[in-house]
Amino acid sequence: MIYLDHSATTPLAPEVFEKMKPWLTQEFGNATSIYAAGQRARNAIESARRTVAKILFCKPEEIIFTSGGTESDNLALRGVLRTNTDGHAVISKIEHHAILRTAEDLAKDGFSFTKIGVDKSGKFKTEQIEKALQPNTKLVSIMLANNEIGVIEPVREIGKMLQKKHPDILLHTDAVQAGGILNIDVQHLKVDLLSLSGHKFYGPKGIGILFVRNGVKLRPTQTGGTQEHKRRAGTENVAVIVGFAEALKIANMRREKESARLKKLRDYFIRRVLTEIPQSQLNGHAIDRLPGNTHFSFYGIEGESILLRLDLAGIAASSGSACTSGSLDPSHVLTALKLNHKWLHSSIRFTLGRSTKKRDINRTVIEMKKIVNDLRSISPLM
Amino acid sequence: MIYLDHSATTPLAPEVFEKMKPWLTQEFGNATSIYAAGQRARNAIESARRTVAKILFCKPEEIIFTSGGTESDNLALRGVLRTNTDGHAVISKIEHHAILRTAEDLAKDGFSFTKIGVDKSGKFKTEQIEKALQPNTKLVSIMLANNEIGVIEPVREIGKMLQKKHPDILLHTDAVQAGGILNIDVQHLKVDLLSLSGHKFYGPKGIGILFVRNGVKLRPTQTGGTQEHKRRAGTENVAVIVGFAEALKIANMRREKESARLKKLRDYFIRRVLTEIPQSQLNGHAIDRLPGNTHFSFYGIEGESILLRLDLAGIAASSGSACTSGSLDPSHVLTALKLNHKWLHSSIRFTLGRSTKKRDINRTVIEMKKIVNDLRSISPLM
Repeated sequence: MIYLDHSATTPLAPEVFEKMKPWLTQEFGNATSIYAAGQRARNAIESARRTVAKILFCKPEEIIFTSGGTESDNLALRGVLRTNTDGHAVISKIEHHAILRTAEDLAKDGFSFTKIGVDKSGKFKTEQIEKALQPNTKLVSIMLANNEIGVIEPVREIGKMLQKKHPDILLHTDAVQAGGILNIDVQHLKVDLLSLSGHKFYGPKGIGILFVRNGVKLRPTQTGGTQEHKRRAGTENVAVIVGFAEALKIANMRREKESARLKKLRDYFIRRVLTEIPQSQLNGHAIDRLPGNTHFSFYGIEGESILLRLDLAGIAASSGSACTSGSLDPSHVLTALKLNHKWLHSSIRFTLGRSTKKRDINRTVIEMKKIVNDLRSISPLM
Repeated sequence: MIYLDHSATTPLAPEVFEKMKPWLTQEFGNATSIYAAGQRARNAIESARRTVAKILFCKPEEIIFTSGGTESDNLALRGVLRTNTDGHAVISKIEHHAILRTAEDLAKDGFSFTKIGVDKSGKFKTEQIEKALQPNTKLVSIMLANNEIGVIEPVREIGKMLQKKHPDILLHTDAVQAGGILNIDVQHLKVDLLSLSGHKFYGPKGIGILFVRNGVKLRPTQTGGTQEHKRRAGTENVAVIVGFAEALKIANMRREKESARLKKLRDYFIRRVLTEIPQSQLNGHAIDRLPGNTHFSFYGIEGESILLRLDLAGIAASSGSACTSGSLDPSHVLTALKLNHKWLHSSIRFTLGRSTKKRDINRTVIEMKKIVNDLRSISPLM
């Protein structure tokens, strides 16, 4: 299989699995127990927390371990807004559903949201955020990099603006697609909250973090025991916490080198597709995009049909985000780009990763030329 | 180590780990992806769901996979009550904190709760529940077995009463301590919702389920993607879902034989402690209790000091639930039993499990006699 869907999930790195293994076999203590086995689990968790904090340039106690990116995003939005009975937040139209649907749900309880749009490259501007602020705005939540078109948003600019002009408004960024790939230094980004998910950077599924700057009032979404400084109840999942930290550490160490390699491969891929397949286009910003992200539309054919043919050829890709790939509606991200209707359903995302070689790209280009040709020959639109 | 804290957590069974391993190594597809690797993950999840449903005597679509027992309890309470803007629920004073603290949190939003008490054996009666019902009662949430004193509550009786007299009121049971140990047939128990946690029956941490009977209106607590029939957003954690089902299957197969074995060991242990250690008492119902649960008080000494001494002797036990073992306050469960003040701080829970042998119990009795003697010799109360 040629796996080109690294934004959906990544394989667990073997060295990360090795680090997790003791916590799935001989070590099983409950980290809140006071005897030695419990304390070893506790120490492993706190050591993982320090590792993560170091990479984010924050304090260990500012890291909350959650069950994944979705929970982190939910906790950020609900946790900040629900400290009051009402309030306003600014988000963008191209946020992940973990933000968008949570905003819809909070709207039922009386909270209000402004969703800012993007230009045709998928970017939004600091001024848009600024204009959308209201007297009762409590939070701005915008993603660092988009999960479909890979566009990188100006989080740091927005953070600067807020710190300068509206220091009371909190800034959350969904950095799930950026973890291990972009700089996630929270001081540099000037964010108050930041979400990550382990399985996006060769760590395990079922683990995420929410960074919450000291002093930020947060109402827990999951209540019960006193774990995670009373901010997230539930028995700590030691193995995946250890795995998360190890995976992030490795990804962060390799980050610059691997990003440069992926960018080169990505641009080679884009160049070949756009020049060798007629009536194809790249969606999303050409430069401000994730090193491994490509997202194309092919006029006149269905993305879904391309995917099925690619699958038969042993190539795994996606028509949008994995979380919505069951749906046949055009994605909210492409809709926000105001793509011409004729291109809307014909899009496909290839996301490159650690295992991707130039020969995989070459194979994919060859297959794509064949598939697009075949499908167009039977398309009523051509 | 002699591990006598199986109610806090259990070791992952080696055969369960083996079943999980492929999903932590070669198989890593996102279960919502349409290509083959995604579909294999999807199939593994749905097969696990069918396994669990069979054991609970429910339909597969009535099972929601969550990140653990705490999330399941939160989803049951919040999910049922928050379909409306107000409402009343009946719980007991000896529920797990995942229920109690969630009730406290929901009370801030205008929901009301009646907490019924227990008799000195830790049991409550169907009539108490019935009396506590109000015209706007939406839900009764009571545990099947208590996590501290192991008392088994009359859930089926309450279910019968509700079905007969108040068919619109939903019944949830926190069966986290009962999974793999007691009968959790939801038709037999007559419950509408039921929570389980994988790591309590030799499955992995970070995975639980909530059974939700078809037709029950539930507002999701975690929103985003369309996973779990839109009732629990977030990338499915395939490995632990597979592990949960396998662990439950194994525990269920061995259930009757293992329960009988544990009961015998438990009663042997209780008999020896009560006869060989003066001024000791058993807390909780002597017969209606979990097969592996013992919970004692030893007059005049601190539970915490006993635990530390036990730890030095290589015996792992607990002074209460793992989730609160950091706290020095007497547990809410013991408080509800109205234990005499002098006995309140001197309690200790030993929970037996699959690995427990008679020789472990013998060793523990010998150590306990020594420890209690030593501590009493320096106690100002003696």
